[in-house]
Amino acid sequence: MVNTFEIIGFIAAVLTTLAYVPQVYKTWKTKSAGNISLTMYIVMFTGIMLWLLYGIHLNSLPMILANAVSGILTLTIVFFKIRYK
Amino acid sequence: MVNTFEIIGFIAAVLTTLAYVPQVYKTWKTKSAGNISLTMYIVMFTGIMLWLLYGIHLNSLPMILANAVSGILTLTIVFFKIRYK
Repeated sequence: MVNTFEIIGFIAAVLTTLAYVPQVYKTWKTKSAGNISLTMYIVMFTGIMLWLLYGIHLNSLPMILANAVSGILTLTIVFFKIRYK
Repeated sequence: MVNTFEIIGFIAAVLTTLAYVPQVYKTWKTKSAGNISLTMYIVMFTGIMLWLLYGIHLNSLPMILANAVSGILTLTIVFFKIRYK
């Protein structure tokens, strides 16, 4: 049986992964990113890639999936930031 | 002995926690947050609070610390976004 805390952990993973989607959408739609910190997204992307490595080492599919998706989303924001300033 | 992958996981946790600092600083300094998605930070803060609960359940001090700090930083961005628009 799935424990309540496992469900909380699962919802946490989904929320902290998908949270980037509205930022990707907003930046793409407005084509402006002046108030966004490039440093934040470079550091975040680097950290997420290390989480991904760690997840691969642990053979944890939820960690691998969550960090692969977050990695794509944060890298998209890095590209938008460079493109739209 | 500490495993290489444990060190990678530790660095990952530090980076994904401290990544918010340059965004907090930039928003505070420029007093503008027009390009920042409020939805992103509300969803991220909610997800981080669930990670914190999960970390308390697992009795994991690194998870508790990382999510407590990330929670404070993302909530600060939420407040800045509401204040500076």
